[in-house]
Amino acid sequence: MIEYYDVSGCYVLRPWSFAIWELLKKWFDAEIKKLGVRNCYFPMFVSQNALQKEKEHIADFAPEVAWVTRAGNSKLNEPIAIRPTSETVMYPSYAKWVHSYRDLPIRLNQWCNVVRWEFKHPTPFLRTREFLWQEGHTAFQTKEEAEEEVFTILDLYAKVYTDLLAIPVVKGRKSEKEKFAGGDFTTTVEAYVPINGRGIQGATSHHLGQNFSQMFDISYEDPESGKKTFAWQNSWGMTTRTIGAMIMIHGDNSGLVLPPRVAPLQVIVIPVGITAQLDQKTKQEIITKTEEITVVLKDSNIRAESDLRDNYSPGWKFNHWELKGVPIRLELGPKDIEKSQVTYTLRYNGQKSVIPLANLSRKCSDLLDEIHNNMLKNMERIRDECQKITTNWSEFKKFLDQRCLILAAFCGLPDCEDNIKKDSSCDEGVEVGAPSMGAKTLCIPLKQPPEQLPAHCIHPDCKEQPKFYALFGRSY
Amino acid sequence: MIEYYDVSGCYVLRPWSFAIWELLKKWFDAEIKKLGVRNCYFPMFVSQNALQKEKEHIADFAPEVAWVTRAGNSKLNEPIAIRPTSETVMYPSYAKWVHSYRDLPIRLNQWCNVVRWEFKHPTPFLRTREFLWQEGHTAFQTKEEAEEEVFTILDLYAKVYTDLLAIPVVKGRKSEKEKFAGGDFTTTVEAYVPINGRGIQGATSHHLGQNFSQMFDISYEDPESGKKTFAWQNSWGMTTRTIGAMIMIHGDNSGLVLPPRVAPLQVIVIPVGITAQLDQKTKQEIITKTEEITVVLKDSNIRAESDLRDNYSPGWKFNHWELKGVPIRLELGPKDIEKSQVTYTLRYNGQKSVIPLANLSRKCSDLLDEIHNNMLKNMERIRDECQKITTNWSEFKKFLDQRCLILAAFCGLPDCEDNIKKDSSCDEGVEVGAPSMGAKTLCIPLKQPPEQLPAHCIHPDCKEQPKFYALFGRSY
Repeated sequence: MIEYYDVSGCYVLRPWSFAIWELLKKWFDAEIKKLGVRNCYFPMFVSQNALQKEKEHIADFAPEVAWVTRAGNSKLNEPIAIRPTSETVMYPSYAKWVHSYRDLPIRLNQWCNVVRWEFKHPTPFLRTREFLWQEGHTAFQTKEEAEEEVFTILDLYAKVYTDLLAIPVVKGRKSEKEKFAGGDFTTTVEAYVPINGRGIQGATSHHLGQNFSQMFDISYEDPESGKKTFAWQNSWGMTTRTIGAMIMIHGDNSGLVLPPRVAPLQVIVIPVGITAQLDQKTKQEIITKTEEITVVLKDSNIRAESDLRDNYSPGWKFNHWELKGVPIRLELGPKDIEKSQVTYTLRYNGQKSVIPLANLSRKCSDLLDEIHNNMLKNMERIRDECQKITTNWSEFKKFLDQRCLILAAFCGLPDCEDNIKKDSSCDEGVEVGAPSMGAKTLCIPLKQPPEQLPAHCIHPDCKEQPKFYALFGRSY
Repeated sequence: MIEYYDVSGCYVLRPWSFAIWELLKKWFDAEIKKLGVRNCYFPMFVSQNALQKEKEHIADFAPEVAWVTRAGNSKLNEPIAIRPTSETVMYPSYAKWVHSYRDLPIRLNQWCNVVRWEFKHPTPFLRTREFLWQEGHTAFQTKEEAEEEVFTILDLYAKVYTDLLAIPVVKGRKSEKEKFAGGDFTTTVEAYVPINGRGIQGATSHHLGQNFSQMFDISYEDPESGKKTFAWQNSWGMTTRTIGAMIMIHGDNSGLVLPPRVAPLQVIVIPVGITAQLDQKTKQEIITKTEEITVVLKDSNIRAESDLRDNYSPGWKFNHWELKGVPIRLELGPKDIEKSQVTYTLRYNGQKSVIPLANLSRKCSDLLDEIHNNMLKNMERIRDECQKITTNWSEFKKFLDQRCLILAAFCGLPDCEDNIKKDSSCDEGVEVGAPSMGAKTLCIPLKQPPEQLPAHCIHPDCKEQPKFYALFGRSY
């Protein structure tokens, strides 16, 4: 998936992981184009002046901004930043383009790299100093249109997880503390990682209100009132972190387990039983049939390859493709040929059986769908088992230590969230990978639990009324 | 196409130009994948150590490298470069991946941004400090395999120009002076820009020999001799400059003229003749029919839109889409409806006629092909008229001032090339846009002219034997 690199916090996306990104990209790109979003490309460099225009925004990003100060042997007159996100890159152009209400909406997207020079310990896919993403930036005449889009995009992000990655997510809003700097509100899809019980943010769709349009003067004269009016804006992004979530959530002790719809290779076909004793004719027949099968599958738009390398044993190949997570392995040996069948093994649960060759493509297609559905259902079950609801602070902390996510009543205030985090970090029973880490809000689920809100916020010292149930957990 | 930006040398690629890039990318990406090339993504940052490994390479790129020296408020221990190209980024990984001849070939490509901080006057698409490109990097066991690939890729680049952009190109090798720094030889496709008589480099495919593999130790033990053996490498790239070439070569006084196969919009359908006197029913019929036609075209995979805006006149719309270069404009008015036809106007030559509605999609498809072929033929004619051959130095200079490209006998030596450039810059008759600029070699055409080589190199002071005909011209 990756290769290590000699600049700290940077990793190489090898073809196996990059192909997953290409598949996600292809799907999402087609969906947003259906909505009328168009792709473009803005520069990666930001002038100091533009970057600092929105105060809250820059305050949040400033500590992680990388600065170019020199070109060749010349010192630049003014340092130039590398985009950590492109609000401040794009909106000066939006201001130039918007003169009348007829110039709205603007709905643009770009697929690009961004840089956030984090000083925390880097982790491939999850915390990297450069990463790839798409960032959509839109501007509307009305708040309603903008808000509607925020949730339309959130639904697409949810589908990326459920329909492509076989990962269940909770849709919700971020708390005031966790929302995007400079925006009005942030929506998010949040997934659960069973191996360590943490929540992971999947992708975010922000409503920026008129904060940026006022700072950058994206305005027009209202056709009715004649007054200067500012556009309502959104921005939304999904990153290569998505691949990291997939690896952690589905992987097992034997390596990757790829959800079929994003697997660069869905079926690997391996010839078996070619022993020294086998006659030349049967040998050749197995090889030929293996190649034939692969072509048949490819012709049905299944991503299939055969592994005909003669310097590796079938057993070695089984391990190799298991490690790489290919959803279906087909084996073809002398007995299979005799019976006009092929033996299959599923990566996600080890299930083994045979398919008549006459019915191969159809059966493989069905199997791929079945695998997807089962992987998703299985993760839903695990996630549901580990998602608790409580009104009791001690229970809250107990659940957290049991690697659960917890729905609890919350006042929504940043100070209270800080206290919850501080007071829920565990002193005893610390586990590797999550040492004494406290809980934070993953989101305020759009779909609130049916239970009535209790009279008190979950933190025992909080005197505020709870406003909603929030989903708490340890997080990435 | 572009928007200006507040960091010098950087421009915004707006959706209209970016969509052209997406179409080029889609075609080229599919072609290289057929060859077995896989996509990946390497970091944009290069450590000083890796960047400086190949001496000739870094000598050429060093003056234009942008350096990150600060992150947030922290000074970095060591400045980090932004890739001007990725040989030095990728090859340390190649060295890790190659242990045996079985690990070869490696054939990777990435679509990404690169930075070359040029201090010359920037020009949109042609000379920009950040640009987009694809860069292919491959490593083979034998020189023969590598060399074969260099020319396979060069043929693909030629096809991008001829088959997609309707631009004729000359395939050739770069001279020693103009070749890629650190490589063995560079091949190129070169186009001709009629408006100023200059040549423009289209895309380049380099054979790197074993220079980089020796520096980065991309090696294996030869299975026969048991000796340490270095890989043979290529790199090849095509940039967004391609779009700039297209604009300049096909554009006219009324704006862009887009070659149909890369036009984001191939057909624009505009309702006409909707006057105040027109009865409501006919009005509605025109609008409905306009929309119907557009759907019919889209269903036949023609990129079509209708322009139904009611705040602009047909005349305004004609100008608008003419400026944007859409290959076919369809007009639909009351008379067209009566006769079940639509009126078309071709952007590239202004030709106007009608198409029976019954035959619309087929006819539009044919027209698009016809436009492509005629645009290409027309440019071939112009280019051929402006490509001269001579053995006479005065004539060489005369042709150059007449905005021609010149085939002339050349010894191939860098010093002689410098002299040709210096001594061919014109003192009198200087024209705007090409003030006193001398000739350089665009390439040494693979297909040499049938004329026998004369006894002397084109430069009168050169005492060397000419080795080949080179194509000279003013250049971008």
